[in-house]
Parts: sequence; structure tokens; C-alpha cells
Amino acid sequence: MRVARVRTQDGIVAVAERGGSWNAIDDLFAEAPRETGARYQPEEVEFLAPVVPTVILGMAHNGSHADRAAPPQAFHKSARSLAGPGDAIPFDEGAGRTVVEAEVGIVIGRRARHLTKENALDAVLGYTVCNDVSAADQSPLDSFWTQTKNGKNYSPIGPWIVTDLDASSLPIELRVNGERIATASTADLARGIREVLVYLTRWLELGPGDIVMTGCPGTMASVVPGDRVEAEVGGIGVLANTIS
Amino acid sequence: MRVARVRTQDGIVAVAERGGSWNAIDDLFAEAPRETGARYQPEEVEFLAPVVPTVILGMAHNGSHADRAAPPQAFHKSARSLAGPGDAIPFDEGAGRTVVEAEVGIVIGRRARHLTKENALDAVLGYTVCNDVSAADQSPLDSFWTQTKNGKNYSPIGPWIVTDLDASSLPIELRVNGERIATASTADLARGIREVLVYLTRWLELGPGDIVMTGCPGTMASVVPGDRVEAEVGGIGVLANTIS
Repeated sequence: MRVARVRTQDGIVAVAERGGSWNAIDDLFAEAPRETGARYQPEEVEFLAPVVPTVILGMAHNGSHADRAAPPQAFHKSARSLAGPGDAIPFDEGAGRTVVEAEVGIVIGRRARHLTKENALDAVLGYTVCNDVSAADQSPLDSFWTQTKNGKNYSPIGPWIVTDLDASSLPIELRVNGERIATASTADLARGIREVLVYLTRWLELGPGDIVMTGCPGTMASVVPGDRVEAEVGGIGVLANTIS
Repeated sequence: MRVARVRTQDGIVAVAERGGSWNAIDDLFAEAPRETGARYQPEEVEFLAPVVPTVILGMAHNGSHADRAAPPQAFHKSARSLAGPGDAIPFDEGAGRTVVEAEVGIVIGRRARHLTKENALDAVLGYTVCNDVSAADQSPLDSFWTQTKNGKNYSPIGPWIVTDLDASSLPIELRVNGERIATASTADLARGIREVLVYLTRWLELGPGDIVMTGCPGTMASVVPGDRVEAEVGGIGVLANTIS
């Protein structure tokens, strides 16, 4: 099932797709969301970030099997850096290169602490497309990456969440101005979904709407103002943003 | 003025103190909050974390003037690690030492980006007491400090916010089981309130309810289960929590 958060003539509503239309639902996080009656055609609505996370985390050095040589690590991205499909990402003059990364995002569905490999996927609502934007030249200057990861609209996600998906081997593609920059697969990640969630929930609590950007398997590019960035994940969709 | 968030027989309400009673107000973040009628005596209410932050940041190596030799740095604490006065902080078996730190917390009052030294204090609602709890032995293992800073109830704040306060030279004291461990002053901090806010808002947006823990001028201790920790800031109050 695809679920989303959209702006409509009735305000911002949670919706689920059925038969090509997007139908309002009572609760994105319910076991079985109930339709409340309103129906929208895709062209009538604006897709927003499908959740409003309390916590956004990114996995560092998780893009290739060689990265297993190092222990797992994760960094925070500010919840205020959240953006949706189509939102412009301001180029930060004076910060050095702006780098975009196409990634799969785990959307957490319930409170989760100390997950095991066996139950880790129970905490997952579904998956969305993420663009983990960085002021990459700040990383050597700030070991916490606070200067790197938290700029305005640096965490676009969307356009929707796919809830019934095996995310272990999804194709990922990054395009800039229509040109294919890189293709990869979640199968390339050093640590997969289960292992990532076991690691993270050892150290912190996750909860409904939280986002884990699973890491970048080479699907990255330096961008400049005017560039149009498309992150595509097979089985999910395309997240497009421009650099302004 | 002192403002707070309290649990009452009427639910959770924002309150301001006047004449020894705590009076319900319409909006903690308003220029001039309006009283809505309900009044509570302090013994009738439970003081909670006075705000629910979107972003919690801590300043690293900001505890002494010698720290000016290094550039400023800040780390995230998960908004899910928020705790209030009296909340128990679970001792994390297997993570090494649990360290508490008494600090002054800046409470942000409005959306703020690219503050200057001149206007930085305009973004401040007031100040509260913070305890920046760490799984300190994880820091050498995780350069992002994600393993260090995000445990359950690792970010107690409270018991209230003082809005009309010059925070440039406030005494700070840490007590464990009633014994004074360390005393210091915000005047000892490498970078004061204005400088901290100019630095942070260069790199990310802050907004209403966000918390900046300003750094620990030696007011720290290793603790074990059963310990009662009191962080006191002169002009604000005492934040007490136990280790469980």
C-alpha cells in the first residue's frame, strides 16, 4: 500500500492509494487505517514529506560491503531540515560543495527500543525515498557533522511511503538535470535494514514517523544552483528537488 | 517571569508564576501571554519539561576559556531523550560510565536563522536548568556521539524557564546525594550565549521550544543507580533526577 501526506483544498490530510485515487485515512500509523470518505486524484493534491519526524538519522559509511570493516555509525539530521517533494534546497554560499545523495529511507511505525534481528521489521511502517543533502566540505571541519547535515531543506523525503515492500534489494538511481549520475542497489549497503535498526535502537528510542536514511551506495553528486535532482528507488518512486 | 508546563487535574497546561501561584496562560511563546483563569498552587502540580523541543543541541568543549583555542562545535541530542524534573534516568548496563553535567539551557522563543551578536538575544525566550547526560565511554568509540548522548531520559530540563534574566554570569552547582561536587559560573564558558547562537544559526534553523545546552564548566560527575542528582543554577532553580 502507498500512503502519503498531501495538501488538498481541505487542508493537509493523510491518504492511502486505492484504484488510482488517493483516499483520506484516519491514521497513517494505524494497523489498518480507515478511509474517512474524501477522495482525491493525484493531480489535485500536493505531495508533502509523508511524515513529520521527531528524529532523522543517517547511516555513515554504509554504502558498500567494504564499509563493514568499520563499526556502524549514525548521525542526526535536524527535524527542522525536513523537506518534501519539489521543495527548493538553498545552495549555501560560503559552505563549500553542496552534495546530494539518493537513498532509501526507513519510516518507523511504532515506538522501538532494543530491537533484535528477528523483530526489527515489526517496527517499520514502510519505505520512502530520501535525499541526504550535505555541505560536504564542512565534514573535515566538524567531526559531529552538525555543520554538514542540517541546512535548510537538507532532508527531502517522499513522495510517499510504500508499506508492503521487501527493501533488501531495491534499485537506486540518481539523476541531475535528467542525466543518470549513478545506479546502485540496497543490496550494496554494508548493513541492511534489520542490522541498522538493531544498531540504532541499542542506543536510542525511535518512534512513529522517525526516518532512517540507510546510506549512500555511490548515488551522490555535487550540485549547483539551478540543478534539478531526481532520486529514484525502484518499487517506491521518484523524489525531485531543485537547488536554488 | 517564570513560565512552566505542568500536569494538573485539568491536564497539561502552560503556566506563569504570579504572586506565588501558577496561573494558566494561553501561549508560552507569546510576546505577552494571557492568563486564562485557572490558578494552581505549586504543591498541586507536577512540573514537566517546560517545553517539548524539536531540536536539542549541546555545545562541546565550551566549559573553560581555554576551549577558545578550538573552533566551536555542537552535537544533537534526540528530542526523544527529553525528560522532566524527577524523571528517573536509567543506568545503561554495558555502556560504561553514566556521566551527568549541570548546565544552563537556552530556550529558543522564535524561528531563528543567521543571528548576529546584536540580535541573538531576541531569539531567546529564557533559560532553564539542564542535565546533559552521557554514556561517556562511548565517545571514543563513536565520533558523532550518537551512542553517547541519546539514551532514555538523557536530556532532563526544568523545572521552569526564567524569561527576564541576564545569563552571562550565573552560578552553577552540581550535587550528588546532597554532596556538592562542583561549582562554576556561566562566565567560565568559552563562548557565551550570543556567540553560541550566532554559531549555531549559521548552520541550522532553530525555533520555538528548541534547547541549547551551553556546555559544562566542570560541573560533572559519574553516577550509579540510586544516585540523586541536583543541578542548580542561581536565578533559575534546581533540577533533580535520580539514576535508576
